Amino acid sequence: MKLKQSLIHGFSKKTRDEKLDFVANLHADKEHTLSVYKSFHHTDSNTQNLLEEFSENTITNFPMPFSICPNVLINDKVYLVPMVIEESSVVAAAAKASKLWFTRGGFKTEILGTEKIGQIHFLWTDDKTILYNRFPELKKRMIKDCFDITENMIKRGGGILDIELKDLSDEEPGLMQFYCTFETVDSMGANFINSCLEQFATTFENWHSAQEELSEEGLEIIMCILSNLTPNCRVKCYVECTYEQLDNIVPGMSGKDFARRFKLGVRVAELDPHRATTHNKGVFNGVDAVVLATGNDFRAVEACGHAYAALSGAYKPLTRVEMDNTHFRFILEMPFALGVVGGLTNLHPLVKQSLELLGHPSATELMSISATIGLANNFSAVKSLVTTGIQQGHMKMHLLNILKQLEVPKKRHKEIVEYFKDKIVSVSAVRQLVEKRSLAETNKNE
Amino acid sequence: MKLKQSLIHGFSKKTRDEKLDFVANLHADKEHTLSVYKSFHHTDSNTQNLLEEFSENTITNFPMPFSICPNVLINDKVYLVPMVIEESSVVAAAAKASKLWFTRGGFKTEILGTEKIGQIHFLWTDDKTILYNRFPELKKRMIKDCFDITENMIKRGGGILDIELKDLSDEEPGLMQFYCTFETVDSMGANFINSCLEQFATTFENWHSAQEELSEEGLEIIMCILSNLTPNCRVKCYVECTYEQLDNIVPGMSGKDFARRFKLGVRVAELDPHRATTHNKGVFNGVDAVVLATGNDFRAVEACGHAYAALSGAYKPLTRVEMDNTHFRFILEMPFALGVVGGLTNLHPLVKQSLELLGHPSATELMSISATIGLANNFSAVKSLVTTGIQQGHMKMHLLNILKQLEVPKKRHKEIVEYFKDKIVSVSAVRQLVEKRSLAETNKNE
Repeated sequence: MKLKQSLIHGFSKKTRDEKLDFVANLHADKEHTLSVYKSFHHTDSNTQNLLEEFSENTITNFPMPFSICPNVLINDKVYLVPMVIEESSVVAAAAKASKLWFTRGGFKTEILGTEKIGQIHFLWTDDKTILYNRFPELKKRMIKDCFDITENMIKRGGGILDIELKDLSDEEPGLMQFYCTFETVDSMGANFINSCLEQFATTFENWHSAQEELSEEGLEIIMCILSNLTPNCRVKCYVECTYEQLDNIVPGMSGKDFARRFKLGVRVAELDPHRATTHNKGVFNGVDAVVLATGNDFRAVEACGHAYAALSGAYKPLTRVEMDNTHFRFILEMPFALGVVGGLTNLHPLVKQSLELLGHPSATELMSISATIGLANNFSAVKSLVTTGIQQGHMKMHLLNILKQLEVPKKRHKEIVEYFKDKIVSVSAVRQLVEKRSLAETNKNE
Repeated sequence: MKLKQSLIHGFSKKTRDEKLDFVANLHADKEHTLSVYKSFHHTDSNTQNLLEEFSENTITNFPMPFSICPNVLINDKVYLVPMVIEESSVVAAAAKASKLWFTRGGFKTEILGTEKIGQIHFLWTDDKTILYNRFPELKKRMIKDCFDITENMIKRGGGILDIELKDLSDEEPGLMQFYCTFETVDSMGANFINSCLEQFATTFENWHSAQEELSEEGLEIIMCILSNLTPNCRVKCYVECTYEQLDNIVPGMSGKDFARRFKLGVRVAELDPHRATTHNKGVFNGVDAVVLATGNDFRAVEACGHAYAALSGAYKPLTRVEMDNTHFRFILEMPFALGVVGGLTNLHPLVKQSLELLGHPSATELMSISATIGLANNFSAVKSLVTTGIQQGHMKMHLLNILKQLEVPKKRHKEIVEYFKDKIVSVSAVRQLVEKRSLAETNKNE
C-alpha cells in the first residue's frame, strides 16, 4: 500500500477507468488487480454504465449469489422466490421449510396495515395555545399546498392520511412535532414523504410569519424526515397444522414432542435478548434475501423490524408459537416498508427479472412473500437448533469452504467429507489429512 | 407465469443450467430471460463455479455497485475504503464527511472489547444445589474436553474466556443457561463458538449421566448457539474539533450554530424511537457497505447493533454529541463481530481485493474502519437534515433515476436538471417536460 497522507482531490470527478487505475496502483500487483476488478464488469457497456450509476465512485460490480427457493406456497398460490444472499445454508433452509409446509397447507399471510410515517421536528417558544387553536386551519393549508406533489399519488389510491401535533417539550424545551401519516401504495414512498414534509415545513413557516402575535424567533424547524419505524405497515405470516402432521419430520420424534421442544426454543428468545437477537437475525436472513433480490433497501427493513422488536421495552423475538389441543401454529409479525415501483425496481436488470418471476406483485404481496421467507428461515433454524443442532449442517459447509480455500481437487471432497463425519473440522486438521493422503498417494505411485 | 400447483421435486439436484432453464420457462420471454440471467455469469467458469458455491440453488450473480470512499483518515492512517451498496448518495455522503474530517484531525477509534458470546439453554428439574456445587469441576472438564477445538485458537491468542451458570427458572420452570464467553481473534468465530458449545453440551450430558443422585430426566438440553448480541465486542469512533473549525462548513453558518443545530438533531433521536430508527439506519448504511465489501454478515451486524440500541429499555441512537466551551465531538459507539479470516474472506475474489486495499486489517482494525464509515454517513445525514434538508440532494438522484427509466438521452439531462432546480420532481412532470421538448424539437426541425 503506497497511500500518501495527503488529501485526494476530485476523486469523484475521475472516470471509472481512472478510478480503477488509481485504486489498482495501491495494490501490490497492479495488473492482476486491474484484471480482477475488470473481470466483474458486465460485457455490455450500457448495462455496466447503468449499474455504476446506482451509486457513486463505483469501479466494478460485487457479485452476490442470486438463488431460487422453490415450492413456496402462500395463500394457496405457488411462488419460486428469488433470494440474494452470500451466507451458505440460508437458501437451503428456506427451501427445506417451504417444501415441508407445502404439503401442510402452506403459508398464510395477512396485511395488518400499510401506513407510512414522516415527521417534522421543531422548536416552538411562543404561546403553545395559539398553535393548538389554529392547527386545524394550518393542517388544511399544509395538505392543500402539497397538492402538486400528492395529485398522482391520490390517483393511485394513496396520499396524506393525517397530520398530528405532538408536544415533546417536557423532555426538551420547546420541542414539538408534526407526526404525519401517508399511504404510498406500491412505492416505498421515501421521496414522496420527504417531499411532502419539506412542503409542509414551507407552508408552516409562511403561516407562522403571517401570524401577527407570533415572534419571528418563536419557531425553529429542526428537520423534516420520514421514519423507517412503521409499526402500522405490518404483515402477519403463519403456518399451522395438527401435531400428527409433524410426526417424524425429525426421524423418530413425535409431532407433539417436536412442537413442545420448538416452543421451548422460541420461549428462550422471549426471555433472553441474547437469544432474541440471534433468533431475529435468522428471520432477517430470509427477509433480506428477498428484499435485496427485489431492489429494496435492507437497512430500512432491518431498522424497522429490530426497533419494532424493542417497542415493548425489552428486545423480543418477532415470531411466536401457539399450541392448542390439536394444532401447532408458528407466527411471524413484523413491520416493514417495501416498494415495487421507483428506486432500483425499474432499473436493475435482475430486479426486473425478480419481480417478473414473482408475477409483478403489489407492495403488500411482496411484504407477504418476504415475511414468508423470513418465517421459513426461522422455522428451519429453530427446528435444527432444538433437534440435531446447527453444526451438523454448518460444519459440512465449513469443511467445503476449507477444501476450496486449500484448493483440494473436487474428486477428493467426498472421501474427506466422509472422514470428517464424526470428527472435528478445523483448517489444520483438514490440511493434515490432505497432506497425509497426498503423501500416501505419492508413495503408492512410486 | 405458468407455475403448477404441485410440489417440485429435486430442484436442488438439477445442474445450474437446468435450474436456469426451469426458471426461464416461467417467464413470458424465455430466450430473453435466459440471456439476461446468463449475461451476469462471470466469463471465467472456475470463478463462476466458486461464486455459485457460496449459496444453494444459485442461477446467476446479482451485481451490487462496488465503490470507493477516498480520504478516510483513521487514527492518523489514510484508507481508501471499499463500499458495496445499492443506495444512491451513501458513498457520496461518506466521501464528503471523510474529506471534511480529513483536514480536522480525522476519525479516532478505540476498541472497547472483543468478547464473543455463546449459550447453552437447558431445563434442569433436579436439585439445583448439586449443579451449583459441582459446577466448578464440570466447567473445568467442559473446557478440557474442548481442547481439540480450541488448540489452534489458543495458539492465535484466543480461546474460551469463561463459562457462567445462569438461572432463568423464575421465568420458565427449570430454565437455566451456560453463558459462555470467547475470544476469537481475527475470525468472526461462529463455527468455533458453535463447535465449542456442542462439545460443552456433550460433556455436560456425560457428566450428568455419571452423577448417581441425578435422574436421567432431570436434564434436557434445549439448544446450543452463539449470540449475535455482543455488547462487549464494541468499538468507539469519534470526530472532534473546535467550533471555529466548523465555521462555514455550511455556507453562512457559524460553527457554533451548526453544532447547536446538529446536537438538536441528535437529541430528537434520543427522545423519539421513530427518529432513532431512521437515525441508526443511516449509521448502518455506511457500516453495512464495508461489511458487505469485506465478506462479512450484515444481518449479524444489524441485529447486534439494533438490539444493543434497545438495551436500556428504550430504542436509542447509536451516536451522541458532546459540546464543551471550545469543542464539538460526535461519537459512535456500537458492538459488532467481524472476521478477516474464514467465511467468504478467503474465497470471494473481490473480498480479497477489499482486504488487500485496506492493507490486510485485523478484525479490530476492520471494526474501526466500518464504524468510521457509519459515523461518516450519520454525520452527513444529520448535517443535511438540520441545514439544507435531505431532499435537495435526493431529488436530483430521483430525477436522474426517472430520466434513466424514461430512457431520456444523456445529452438532455443537464437542461432538465436545471429546469427542475426549483420545481417538484415527479415521473409525470418529467414525462410532460420531456414530451413537450421533444415536440418542440420536432417542430423546430420541420
